[in-house]
Amino acid sequence: MLRGGICAVSGVRAYGIRENNRGLALIEGKGKAVGMFTMNKMKAAPLIFTQRLLLENGRISAIIANSGCANSFTGEEGMRNANRMAELASAVLGVDKSEVAVASTGPIGKQLDIAMIARQVQEVAKRLTSDPEGSAAAAKAIMTTDTFPKELAIKVGEVTIGGIAKGSGMIYPHLATATMLAFIYTDADLDRETMRTCLKDACDNSFNMIVVDGDMSTNDMVLLVSRGGKEISAENFKTGLNYLCKELAKMIARDGEGATKFIEVNVSLKGAPVSQGDAKLIAREILRSPLVKSAIFGERIDLACGRIIAAIGSCTSTSTSTVPEVEVISMKFRGKEQEVEVVRNGRIVGRWNHEVMKGKEITIDIVLGGGEGESEGEKETTATATAWGCDLSCDYVMLNASML
Amino acid sequence: MLRGGICAVSGVRAYGIRENNRGLALIEGKGKAVGMFTMNKMKAAPLIFTQRLLLENGRISAIIANSGCANSFTGEEGMRNANRMAELASAVLGVDKSEVAVASTGPIGKQLDIAMIARQVQEVAKRLTSDPEGSAAAAKAIMTTDTFPKELAIKVGEVTIGGIAKGSGMIYPHLATATMLAFIYTDADLDRETMRTCLKDACDNSFNMIVVDGDMSTNDMVLLVSRGGKEISAENFKTGLNYLCKELAKMIARDGEGATKFIEVNVSLKGAPVSQGDAKLIAREILRSPLVKSAIFGERIDLACGRIIAAIGSCTSTSTSTVPEVEVISMKFRGKEQEVEVVRNGRIVGRWNHEVMKGKEITIDIVLGGGEGESEGEKETTATATAWGCDLSCDYVMLNASML
Repeated sequence: MLRGGICAVSGVRAYGIRENNRGLALIEGKGKAVGMFTMNKMKAAPLIFTQRLLLENGRISAIIANSGCANSFTGEEGMRNANRMAELASAVLGVDKSEVAVASTGPIGKQLDIAMIARQVQEVAKRLTSDPEGSAAAAKAIMTTDTFPKELAIKVGEVTIGGIAKGSGMIYPHLATATMLAFIYTDADLDRETMRTCLKDACDNSFNMIVVDGDMSTNDMVLLVSRGGKEISAENFKTGLNYLCKELAKMIARDGEGATKFIEVNVSLKGAPVSQGDAKLIAREILRSPLVKSAIFGERIDLACGRIIAAIGSCTSTSTSTVPEVEVISMKFRGKEQEVEVVRNGRIVGRWNHEVMKGKEITIDIVLGGGEGESEGEKETTATATAWGCDLSCDYVMLNASML
Repeated sequence: MLRGGICAVSGVRAYGIRENNRGLALIEGKGKAVGMFTMNKMKAAPLIFTQRLLLENGRISAIIANSGCANSFTGEEGMRNANRMAELASAVLGVDKSEVAVASTGPIGKQLDIAMIARQVQEVAKRLTSDPEGSAAAAKAIMTTDTFPKELAIKVGEVTIGGIAKGSGMIYPHLATATMLAFIYTDADLDRETMRTCLKDACDNSFNMIVVDGDMSTNDMVLLVSRGGKEISAENFKTGLNYLCKELAKMIARDGEGATKFIEVNVSLKGAPVSQGDAKLIAREILRSPLVKSAIFGERIDLACGRIIAAIGSCTSTSTSTVPEVEVISMKFRGKEQEVEVVRNGRIVGRWNHEVMKGKEITIDIVLGGGEGESEGEKETTATATAWGCDLSCDYVMLNASML
């Protein structure tokens, strides 16, 4: 593990500041860029702006990102303000405006305070640094209800990959690309098509597999910028990027609004035929259930178990492919030090061991199917998926009712 | 409005008792019967039992229903116990076992206490009555976390339709037919095919349009029993049944777990082409969003507005048919005495009038589209849908964490 988040990548400078709940981050670092954006039809202005920029111009020289206002559902004024943010960064950094990506996070339906951003950008620009505190300051500046900044840097051979991210409500990303934001830099020498393939794969197995509340944001955005210079195989880069994105995604899940427990759900589908799409759907839908999440908040393994069964049956009710039947469900709850088998082959066998539930991290392993193949002559296949989330606490409700 | 719920229908006797959280209801009344059952793949034993009974035998002489245990995910023992419940009712009422429907509601994954049910059924049978208190006692007996019993009876011409129902968590019915249960009796003279068509239509516009938490139960069941004797056109019966089911569904939404506010969402899609399926999807998904629900709990119209926009964009991201664009969204919040326009043609216009939000009943009217048709020459069409739900409070979380 390296220190420095995005600043671990040579030539990347960053900084950010916060005033009350309004933060501004600036990142400088030229390179080829690809992005993943929310599937939400109500895309916020900065997403429309940045998506267009990446289409017209495959390069980024800087990213400007604010917290405290999503600049979403803000009409033409919102588009002008997104453009204005790019101009501000362009002017202060002396880079081409057509190479400045813009991102925003915060409440929907309010206009940006552009005067404040204009003031903040001056201050941030003065303090841009390639030292680790630059990345940390940027990661802090984009926080909303996050309780800790999220950054990571790794080495894959000679190549460095560094990222920062934020959560922590309205988290149910469908990135074809929440408001989760993640900015990732690397010095890997890759063409944009490879970058795009690697980023899509990494997002599908990381950010797209976290659920805080099941609400899909209008502002989710992941950007990958490659500065080039270091050789690496696509396969090795993909492995590294997958690891980095998963770790950032897990930080977001761990820091979900009001979360008291981090939950990992592993689903293994066995039979013929099974699809990974179904495994992913089941893992995500379990973590989307308010009833499952409340039961885990209450440390009630007995209630959680039945509600997980119902969630599995619910999301597979409309599934088109073959999902194994109830008779072949097995379920285990694991904590850091102990585990308890709850269901074996469709039968409840667990004593209700509460100790596992008292931990801050709970892993639920679910196996559906196994034994005989569903059709004669067909070989049994296995599809697995892992999703990450958190419990549903009173603090989540109070926070989102703005009572905290 | 008539008194007496199901007992308003001539020849129907009912009663029920509760001991702590274990209730038992018995309803006697012969007639042709049709049912709607949860789409959840993990159907509980009583649903499998009753679904089979209706296939093999289109008649019901009695319904036995318990609360406090769902008899769901209980394997072969669960099927034996469902069968045993039918036998107990059959013996005590002197009716054919093949004409006894069985329903259960409560926690998933526990076996029934058949000895207790055997004792309770004796007591209930002694007190069966066609007086209004019989229906009320049965409605009370099937309550779980419900705070009030739900019953209604109406007259459509000469015909009487009476029903009882219960909610109030794990409410997101997909009845092709929650744990919501509803038992409806009528003296209308109808063939089963007409009954089935009318019940499906009524469920699609009532129980299937309520959302408490978005969790689909393994035990949802609606039964319609027609004792016959009174003539009515299919059209008139359908209108009456729709009204009755909507009113029962609204009672369930109003009494959702932890609910402090009752919410009605009206969605009107305009354009060409639009589908009612999309209108229904949007209305339901708005009420499924924990963020929207928390904002309404917090009486924050500003937060609710943005989150509703995000929910609309989220659920239409995968929609195949044409949903109007952001520019043509209008939104209004209505209370009992006042209303506030929040969004007009894609622009936020509302002052944040909190008064509307302080009421116990909030109606949200959303219009998507309008003005020009989407394609030349095509006529503008309109699709509308209404869904009902409730806010998300700390009490919901505490109740389902079993901390209340």
